[in-house]
Order: sequence, then structure tokens, then C-alpha cells
Amino acid sequence: MAVIGADLGGTKLATALFDADGRPQSKAAVPLEGRKGHEVGDRIRQECAKLLDEATRQGQRVDAIGIGVPGIFRPGAGTVWAPNIPGWEQYPLLQELSALSGGEIPLCIESDRSCCILGEVWKGAAKGCRNAVFLAVGTGIGAGVVVDGRLLRGARDIAGAIGWFALHRPFDPKYAPVGCFEYHASGDGIARMARERIAADAGYKGLLSGRNLRAEDVFRAYGFRDPIAQSVLADCIELWGMAAANLISLLNPEVIVFGGGVFGPAAQFLEAVRNETEKWAQPIAFKDVRIKASALGGDAALYGAACAALQSLSLDWSRELPS
Amino acid sequence: MAVIGADLGGTKLATALFDADGRPQSKAAVPLEGRKGHEVGDRIRQECAKLLDEATRQGQRVDAIGIGVPGIFRPGAGTVWAPNIPGWEQYPLLQELSALSGGEIPLCIESDRSCCILGEVWKGAAKGCRNAVFLAVGTGIGAGVVVDGRLLRGARDIAGAIGWFALHRPFDPKYAPVGCFEYHASGDGIARMARERIAADAGYKGLLSGRNLRAEDVFRAYGFRDPIAQSVLADCIELWGMAAANLISLLNPEVIVFGGGVFGPAAQFLEAVRNETEKWAQPIAFKDVRIKASALGGDAALYGAACAALQSLSLDWSRELPS
Repeated sequence: MAVIGADLGGTKLATALFDADGRPQSKAAVPLEGRKGHEVGDRIRQECAKLLDEATRQGQRVDAIGIGVPGIFRPGAGTVWAPNIPGWEQYPLLQELSALSGGEIPLCIESDRSCCILGEVWKGAAKGCRNAVFLAVGTGIGAGVVVDGRLLRGARDIAGAIGWFALHRPFDPKYAPVGCFEYHASGDGIARMARERIAADAGYKGLLSGRNLRAEDVFRAYGFRDPIAQSVLADCIELWGMAAANLISLLNPEVIVFGGGVFGPAAQFLEAVRNETEKWAQPIAFKDVRIKASALGGDAALYGAACAALQSLSLDWSRELPS
Repeated sequence: MAVIGADLGGTKLATALFDADGRPQSKAAVPLEGRKGHEVGDRIRQECAKLLDEATRQGQRVDAIGIGVPGIFRPGAGTVWAPNIPGWEQYPLLQELSALSGGEIPLCIESDRSCCILGEVWKGAAKGCRNAVFLAVGTGIGAGVVVDGRLLRGARDIAGAIGWFALHRPFDPKYAPVGCFEYHASGDGIARMARERIAADAGYKGLLSGRNLRAEDVFRAYGFRDPIAQSVLADCIELWGMAAANLISLLNPEVIVFGGGVFGPAAQFLEAVRNETEKWAQPIAFKDVRIKASALGGDAALYGAACAALQSLSLDWSRELPS
């Protein structure tokens, strides 16, 4: 048996054929190159069709296809809302892909953050855990959560929107578009906070002056002990720790996995984040938890998409994750 | 059929026999009067035995017994940790009660906060919901959570410890014993914040001066527009709203039920709490959620204990709550 995993991002599509042992083969990543609407659906169908052919050549049967999407999948309607893909407000992805192999292969669509935690639980930093959180810090912030071996979905499949965690009083209207936590401590937030502090400090003449700042620049300047970079990242460490603590006190998980593009460079702060978390979290729950960086990095959602496909095959998929 | 529900508090034990329609009969509440250790276990056994006799007299069969405890039940060991009952660090309640009716009646023990949300989902403000939170604000703060129709327990059965929510930066060592949220916004927290502000305001000569303050006093003074009471409760409204927002953004529930001794008098602020919550929460998840006060009040955990007993009878209890 084999399954196909596909991880759709805002700018590229990664795919692989996973064999019976869960090893990815024929991994590929293709850029979206500004595609929108049905063009993106076509791209997914083409890449999956290639892997179906590949499997046939290898004499492998593909039993299911799992797809991670950068947004929210509505199982009832079969549609995807993906804010970074033009024309994907209510995109009928399930229907679009049903043509693959005459609709005979089960198809499973999950949000990318859910895929990330499934991947880590299946093959990564949360391996074998039944209660685990993937705290994704990239351009934005979100969480994929497994509770008692099952994905946390919520009443309308939008659980995990922790970019909206309220961590800094009082409310500021500038939080409204993205949420308080994401405003301060996402990749975009790191650049934003640096810009705000530079604008407020007329005497600053450091590395971050006079450029179109991005989070990478702040991490680079941190390496040179730039005071703005130090102050912004110190705030992020505090906020990442507070958010992790809130997840630990509420959910009592076995592991919190920090991932996304920012971890990455922020993995150097994991010990500091752990120390901050310890201050805030319920102490018994803190003792029970491990705080780790993603073991799968950029492949977490790809593995998780394959894991979701595998789960869709099992009658009892909700009770146990495949090993 | 019938079930017995028992709600053990720090100072009293409430019990009732619930008939097939889920109506409580022969409700009773007995004080613990300083009992400790096995004396408390004896009290529970005696009260349950009375209801078993009562059921026999009425020709009803008791099919299960559910007990809510003010702390944490460890299913593996069958023990209860209840900080407010002396000698209940690892109290073997399951074993102590197995003598009831020769061990033939299934016995189900849950934390009081889990019982509160079960009660509200079964018969109260969250009736029929599969994703719901009971936000208990009493002496302390905790949450009972139902996710996809099942109780949220966590890896070690200590989920819901949201008194430890990190909501106010930076960390202050005074938060360490009870958690940041509980420090500010529990019943004890309301009295504590009032005392702190009175101590810091030498000119204050208001209603709250010179007495051993309790939360009730602060609510009473609020009715007379006392400025300290107003400022303390304004902070609580903000923090209750932030906490509700965090639960909504993460869990995407259908309803948040505010309960516990403080709601009660704080129910007058529910609209203000809702407005504060709306500022912070993920906006789509906020639109989906209702924010309500407990419909069962002090009986929530008693109903929930009976509901837990009913659930223990159903093979498929994890999928559906009894109606």
C-alpha cells in the first residue's frame, strides 16, 4: 500500500508518494507562479496524477490521498477557504479532485496546521503522543492540536486560531486585523515591531535603519547584538512562552512543538522560551510537557497530509494514529 | 432506570437520585463539618446508600453512580487529589466506594469542573452542544471543556487549569501560587486586588476601608459606585473577556458558560464581558459562539455527575451525550 501526501502553501505545492513504511518517495515541489482559482486545483490534480502514474510504474497501489491546505477546509461543503490563494474563498477542492482515478481513491483534506501536528505525531517531535500541539510561527501564527489522539477541529472547523490569543493588555485597535499574539510575535510581527521601535527612536542608527525590514533582518541584526533586534526578540520569547503556557495549562499535552518559518532561526531561543513558559504554566502540567522544535521542518505538513490519508483508511482512525 | 449524582465540594456534599428523564429527586446537601480523609469517603458512601434505599423503596433500579470531586481524579490509580479536603492527596475514593451495593453498580468519578460542563451540556446553557466550555470563577478559576462531544482530560487528567492563563505581562512572582488569571480575577483575586489598591491609595476612605474584604463586599460597594470596586471589576471584565476570547480562538466552541460563585453577582457584567471578548477573539469563531451564564447555578456539577454516570453506561458514551 501507499498514500500520496500533498502540502499546498501560498506559493508552492509539495508532493510525495509515501510507501507502506511511511517513507516519502518521489518528493517534488512546484511553484504556483501566481496561479489562482481553478489553476491551483489543476496543479494539484496534475501533481497527484504524476504520482499515481509513478506508483503504477512501481507496482504500488495508492490507497488514499491527503492534502494540506493553507486555510480552512469545510468538510460539509467540501470547500476550502485559503486567504493567500486568489479565488479560494469557497473553492470546491474536494469536487475538483474527485476526478483523480475516477473518484475511487479516498481523498482527505486538512488545514496545514492540522497536518503539521499530524506529521509530528506520526514521524516527528511528538511521535506517538495522543495530546500534542504544533505552534506554527511563520508569516502568521496558528496551532494544530491533537486531543486524545484526535484532531481538534471545533464546531466550525476553525479551531487553533491562536494568533488571536489575548496576551497584552489593554486591547489596541491595531490588533484587529490579525490578533494580538500574531501582531507582536509572528514573522510579520517581528518586522512590524522592529519598524515601530525604529520609528520611535530618532537616535537609532543601527543595522536595521533605512530598509524594508523583514523578520530575517531582525534575526541577522540580533546576531550582531543590535538593541532593537534584542528588544523585539525578547518580547517574542516572552509572548511565545505565555502562549505555550496557556496551551499547557488548558490542554495538559505531552509536547508542544514549535515550528513554522520563524523556528527556523528562533530555535536558538527554545531554552529561553521554555524558561518563560515555566513561569506561567500550571506547574504539574509543565512538568509533564516537553517543549521542542519541529523535527520535520518544512516537511511537517507534507508528512501530516500523508498521515491524514492513512487515517482516513482506518475505521478506527480516530483512536490511534498509525505508527 | 435511575442514576445517583453526587457533588462533593470543599465544605458540603450534595446528592440526588435522577430518574429516567434526568429529573433530580430526593436532593440533599450535607455539610462536611471539618471531616477529613476517610470520614469524607464515609459520608459519600452513607449518602449514596440512603439514595440506593430510597430507589429501592420507589421500585427504581440505580444503574450507575457519578461523583464530582473538587480536584483531580486519576483513573489509573482510582485516587483523588483534592487540595481543600485534608488527607485527600491521593485518596482511594474508587476503592472506598466499591463496597456500595457489592461493587455491582458502575461508579464514575470526574473533576467538578468537568461535571459542570457535562451538566450544562446535558440540561443547561450548553444543551446539546458538542463543543463547549464552562468557565468556573469561584474562589479559584478553572474550565470544564467538551471537545467534539467528549470531555477534555489531557495527558494526565489535569486539563482545564486556566487559572494559570498568562494574560498580563510581565510575569510577577506573586502569580506563582495560583496563576496570573486567578490572581487577578477569581473570587479571592477580586478581594486581593481591592486590598492592594486600597493599600496603594492613602486617600481612600470609601466603603471598602478597614475591613476583612471579601469578593461579596466588592460587588456590594460596586452597587454604590465605589471607585476601587469599579476599577477592580473593570479589570476583571477585561480579563474574563480575554480568557473567553482565548478559549474561543483556540477551541471554536458553540458556547462559553460562565459559572461558579462569582457568576452569581458578576452575571450583571455578562454583556460587558461579551463586548470585551469580541475585541480579542478570532472574528469568525466569535460569531459562532454564544456567551452565557450558567443555567444550573450551584447544581451544575450535581447534574454533571449524574450525566457522567449515564455516560458510563453507554458503550458509545464518548460520541453522544444523553439528551
